[in-house]
Amino acid sequence: MKIQTILSPQLFPLFADEVVGKQVVIIDILRATTSMVVMLDNGAIAVKPVEGVEEAMKLKRDNPSLLIAGERNGFKLEGFDFGNSPQEFTPERVAGKSLVITTTNGTQALSLSLAASHIWVGGFLNIDALVEAISVKGEDVFLFCAGWKGHVNLEDTLFAGAVAKSLLLKDFAIADDATRAAMVLWEQAQGDLHGFLSEASHVQRFQSMHAESDLDACLRMNTSDRAVIYEKGVLVAIPR
Amino acid sequence: MKIQTILSPQLFPLFADEVVGKQVVIIDILRATTSMVVMLDNGAIAVKPVEGVEEAMKLKRDNPSLLIAGERNGFKLEGFDFGNSPQEFTPERVAGKSLVITTTNGTQALSLSLAASHIWVGGFLNIDALVEAISVKGEDVFLFCAGWKGHVNLEDTLFAGAVAKSLLLKDFAIADDATRAAMVLWEQAQGDLHGFLSEASHVQRFQSMHAESDLDACLRMNTSDRAVIYEKGVLVAIPR
Repeated sequence: MKIQTILSPQLFPLFADEVVGKQVVIIDILRATTSMVVMLDNGAIAVKPVEGVEEAMKLKRDNPSLLIAGERNGFKLEGFDFGNSPQEFTPERVAGKSLVITTTNGTQALSLSLAASHIWVGGFLNIDALVEAISVKGEDVFLFCAGWKGHVNLEDTLFAGAVAKSLLLKDFAIADDATRAAMVLWEQAQGDLHGFLSEASHVQRFQSMHAESDLDACLRMNTSDRAVIYEKGVLVAIPR
Repeated sequence: MKIQTILSPQLFPLFADEVVGKQVVIIDILRATTSMVVMLDNGAIAVKPVEGVEEAMKLKRDNPSLLIAGERNGFKLEGFDFGNSPQEFTPERVAGKSLVITTTNGTQALSLSLAASHIWVGGFLNIDALVEAISVKGEDVFLFCAGWKGHVNLEDTLFAGAVAKSLLLKDFAIADDATRAAMVLWEQAQGDLHGFLSEASHVQRFQSMHAESDLDACLRMNTSDRAVIYEKGVLVAIPR
């Protein structure tokens, strides 16, 4: 099975035909896909990603028990229950609830991928479960980095490299230069991920706006043992 | 001064406004920009890059003394005097001649960059001269990788990393994650560039079609001491 990496949504048109019927992993480490995993891990019944702020607001007007989460340019949205920090989605606040989330980059990448056979959402916090789930499906996989407003970013690229490296041990093969580059970067970064990322542009932007603890939460490895898949419009956790 | 890297023409729209009045370096290591430098180094009077095959043919019909060079998908074009191998452009064949070149990726990246203040074309063979020339102009620089049909490729990314690393010693600063990634990749590759690239997809495609000596010619460092700039529709070499 082949691994390819889409380094930003801007590059997606090159892959649009190829992803049909294949697996796609949506990667938005800071913070959308990390937060999505946390929501489900902490007991949310369902998580629905939507592209537009208006769409999220309308869903809430139609069903006031829904909780809505979201950011634009990294900031929480007016009238929303949550921003996009993984630390907000505590069991106390999300267990038994249905959530809607909209983010700058992550939900856009997801919308582009709807023709895939399986759409995974993941982060460092559930990387082993994600790799296991991809491997069980046994189809070619596209690692789709959400990036930052179309630009390639380091944290999503590094995660793609980490997933690729693990998949190599499970009969997958690298099929493009983007994956090869991501894996070399991961090999350089893995010993000190925090330090390696400290100069990255999105991380600097991020650190100027958010708590350092938010970054830590997004880089922690394997605190969750469930893969998260997008099915019929909502995200669902799959027990290992 | 800032350094940014455009990893493929597909990403160019994100930078279109920013490059206006700034420096751009067009990078197509295998083989367009390497060959352009070789042509001028071996005595060509002028080298005119054009996008279309038809445009090149028409120029030759209008002026039969012109020599036309070009490839599509890596192969020499019917009716052309040269393909795109740097080894073809010997002093015997190009000294005193005017040439026209059209290639799959390199000339497209050049056409996109016309709003820049200075457009450089370079390769490993004239990297030191290129870095010196960029530094003398003292404006922000965009390292524009031609890639392969819109896809990111390793050899162009590595060259961007090599240029960025040298510019850091000349009061330039890295301004995006793409440049940061390219530089880390270059640091890994520089000890054994040939070995590092041996698994790259374009290099494999390349090796199946061309002589190994062609790859060597494209990876050789500093055999030329002149920077090449695009001015009024033609490429010109600048003595150091």
